[in-house]
Amino acid sequence: MAVELKDLTKRSENYSQWYNELVVKADLAEQSAVRGCMVIKPYGYAIWEKMQHELDRMFKETGHVNAYFPLLIPKSFLSREAEHVEGFAKECAVVTHYRLKNDPNGGGVVVDPAAKLEEELIIRPTSETIIWNTYKNWINSYRDLPILCNQWANVFRWEMRTRLFLRTAEFLWQEGHTAHATREEAEEEAVRMLNVYADFAEKYMALPVIKGVKSANERFAGALNTYTIEAMMQDGKALQSGTSHFLGQNFAKAFDVQFVNKENKLEYVWATSWGVSTRLMGALIMTHSDDNGLVLPPHLAPIQVVIVPIYKNAEMLAKIDEKVAGIVQRLRAMGISVKYDNADNKRPGFKFADYELKGVPVRLVMGGRDLENNTMEVMRRDTLEKETRSCEGIEQYVKDLLEEMQANIYKKALDYRNRRITTADTYDEFKQKIEEGGFILAHWDGTTETEEKIKEETKATIRCIPFDSFVPGDKEPGKCMVTGKPSQCRVIFARSY
Amino acid sequence: MAVELKDLTKRSENYSQWYNELVVKADLAEQSAVRGCMVIKPYGYAIWEKMQHELDRMFKETGHVNAYFPLLIPKSFLSREAEHVEGFAKECAVVTHYRLKNDPNGGGVVVDPAAKLEEELIIRPTSETIIWNTYKNWINSYRDLPILCNQWANVFRWEMRTRLFLRTAEFLWQEGHTAHATREEAEEEAVRMLNVYADFAEKYMALPVIKGVKSANERFAGALNTYTIEAMMQDGKALQSGTSHFLGQNFAKAFDVQFVNKENKLEYVWATSWGVSTRLMGALIMTHSDDNGLVLPPHLAPIQVVIVPIYKNAEMLAKIDEKVAGIVQRLRAMGISVKYDNADNKRPGFKFADYELKGVPVRLVMGGRDLENNTMEVMRRDTLEKETRSCEGIEQYVKDLLEEMQANIYKKALDYRNRRITTADTYDEFKQKIEEGGFILAHWDGTTETEEKIKEETKATIRCIPFDSFVPGDKEPGKCMVTGKPSQCRVIFARSY
Repeated sequence: MAVELKDLTKRSENYSQWYNELVVKADLAEQSAVRGCMVIKPYGYAIWEKMQHELDRMFKETGHVNAYFPLLIPKSFLSREAEHVEGFAKECAVVTHYRLKNDPNGGGVVVDPAAKLEEELIIRPTSETIIWNTYKNWINSYRDLPILCNQWANVFRWEMRTRLFLRTAEFLWQEGHTAHATREEAEEEAVRMLNVYADFAEKYMALPVIKGVKSANERFAGALNTYTIEAMMQDGKALQSGTSHFLGQNFAKAFDVQFVNKENKLEYVWATSWGVSTRLMGALIMTHSDDNGLVLPPHLAPIQVVIVPIYKNAEMLAKIDEKVAGIVQRLRAMGISVKYDNADNKRPGFKFADYELKGVPVRLVMGGRDLENNTMEVMRRDTLEKETRSCEGIEQYVKDLLEEMQANIYKKALDYRNRRITTADTYDEFKQKIEEGGFILAHWDGTTETEEKIKEETKATIRCIPFDSFVPGDKEPGKCMVTGKPSQCRVIFARSY
Repeated sequence: MAVELKDLTKRSENYSQWYNELVVKADLAEQSAVRGCMVIKPYGYAIWEKMQHELDRMFKETGHVNAYFPLLIPKSFLSREAEHVEGFAKECAVVTHYRLKNDPNGGGVVVDPAAKLEEELIIRPTSETIIWNTYKNWINSYRDLPILCNQWANVFRWEMRTRLFLRTAEFLWQEGHTAHATREEAEEEAVRMLNVYADFAEKYMALPVIKGVKSANERFAGALNTYTIEAMMQDGKALQSGTSHFLGQNFAKAFDVQFVNKENKLEYVWATSWGVSTRLMGALIMTHSDDNGLVLPPHLAPIQVVIVPIYKNAEMLAKIDEKVAGIVQRLRAMGISVKYDNADNKRPGFKFADYELKGVPVRLVMGGRDLENNTMEVMRRDTLEKETRSCEGIEQYVKDLLEEMQANIYKKALDYRNRRITTADTYDEFKQKIEEGGFILAHWDGTTETEEKIKEETKATIRCIPFDSFVPGDKEPGKCMVTGKPSQCRVIFARSY
């Protein structure tokens, strides 16, 4: 067995360490020399590319176009929207100079003090300000609306505690920024994109998510409403996986973006923004993977099928090579990505462990007896079950198996999550249950004060006020578990990433 | 006619102004609020996406994988390779602080002096240093080689004089960074990728390029050899369109990247890097476009066919709509991107001018008489020729026409370029001819001194020592036009962007 696998910490021992090790051992990402910034390695990036591809298609199908806006934002732009600057000022990377020079004292290159910027520039933590400053020139009349732009970009937030994919100083994301003539249209857009995210999470990531709206305290800095999709990890903690913001007219007012409406009157433009990031990689890894390594949903796996030969000599390998070539060809013709690994510098046992670690959904093995019997051993990564199948029609069998696995890991994650959604009616009950993890539906009086008290005392936050119902009566009014004041409905609490 | 078109400066009047206006009027890009940084607008970005798509496919077909490395580079990394830091230090954006705070004196947000970085970080002007620092951990043995990574990223070089797409402080590009066990393999890789660039330029951009090697003076900072593709714009100036560098062991030595070779000895790794950027957009625009606006090669046009109805009333429009729907469907089934513009808030004449400005390759028009006769007017953007065709089989006709146009604009650009390649045997002749523009094949003694003298006196630089022959005898030895010293072969001089 491969050394890498032996060394992987078990989830039950230390979930957090298991995750950190898995990301590195499965060749997904690693820390770089720059604090908090990661290197996304080719295998990890290939998964991200598949995510991008599907999301991009879904954005375009809903009428959006891509564009690109500057990396750097003048410091003064941030200050225009009061809550926005409050939210981001503390984690900004600041560019102050535009040149290095040779140290006259021989100390290598140093910052050239003569090249100090008049106004400092911020590396974008998000692009609302630079984009709304641009939209100002694009919008005159209702005929110019809506604007439905998306941008694939890197952003930077100087985080103090970072973890690969989950929280990094630099991360990759997409940010949609839309401009509308009416409040209703902008609100619809924000919800539409939340639904796109939820569909993507379910159909491609096999990730069940709860759609809902954030409490005022957890809103994006500058938003009137933040919608969210919340997923549950295998340790019962929540991971916010995507957000969509109804920004009202806040940024239009901050950047003076008005349009002439159909009644020939000047009005401020309505806005949304929405984003998902490489954080989704963290959600993907933590939701499905096990003590043997990654479990990847077939719809996002860079390699869907690996084929490994077991042979005693070159002659036998040549026969297997020949037999496998046709299978590879037919699988590829079905749109399935296949790797045939007949490299002779690694033993089959090493290869098995390595592809398990990397989460390749289906493994096919052909040995001497298989060659005689025209069979292959099929192993599915989600359950690790093996069976021997005839080579006749194995391509269709594998194709169906991939779809079954996609459905199976979604169902498994969904069942797990649903089992761990509970209710609490008293604060004591809540405190007890939150220690066990999972999502807790409880009544809350709607105040930030109570929310903060709960957070301080239990480390749990309100993940969202869900759109859907999860237990009977959760949409009915009740009394706040802390203050006893009236509550409209139960909200979801959890500890989170 | 549209106001925009009337206002477009003619190429013959002021080529430079024509370009600047066209980029903005055709909705490709615009200046942002940040000095030297552009906004790539949706129409321009759609062309860039098509370029990316084809290039990415070509990289993967030649065995490369994508990865992502940090945006920020520790200042000390730059200094490790002496020529590299010399080449880039003067145009670095420098991050010195990681936080803003409220000005205690009420002046808004200011840089927090307490959040000064111990070591400044540079926004990557190119990523050799951070990548080779990473490769150090990836490479132990010859079994780990080759590494064939590419990255799609934004980079930043603080340019003093900027022009949209051609020279911007921030630009988008791809940068390939490969690591090899032998010098030969690395040199082959550098040439392989130059050929990929040239193929892409010719087949997709319809851009004829001259492949060659740069003089020592024009090499990438840190390279042993820089290969280039050079294109000629319509004003006779050269535009360097892509470069591929053989880096030798320079970066391996700077970052101490050694491997155990097959003979079990430690050896430094051999490297290449290669890149093309959004500058290609400038080449695309300047090569084919005319006084009516953009001319886009069909293989990269976001909209390949636009269909415009001309109608007198709603009833007639309904009939045209119905007729056109089938044509649209059949064109799309052939993989052709089509826009049917039956919007009633713009007159046909405005639409015609607008789509001409935007370079849509084929325009189909259906009016009342066409409806009766089952015909359409076909206009091709490259020659502006119109003809009336039966709707029967028009889809195949359009498909063939697009291919013909792709070939035609390539040929047109190639003929133009070849006509403007001349020779000069004396420096006087050279000085005269360089004023007329175009590429001049002349003998040069191979010294940087002579090269710089020529540049200073004529503003012409050596674009490359071409691989191919362009005029009889250009590969034969001769005497330097300036010094009379021996020359191996003629090299290409031109003024350039």
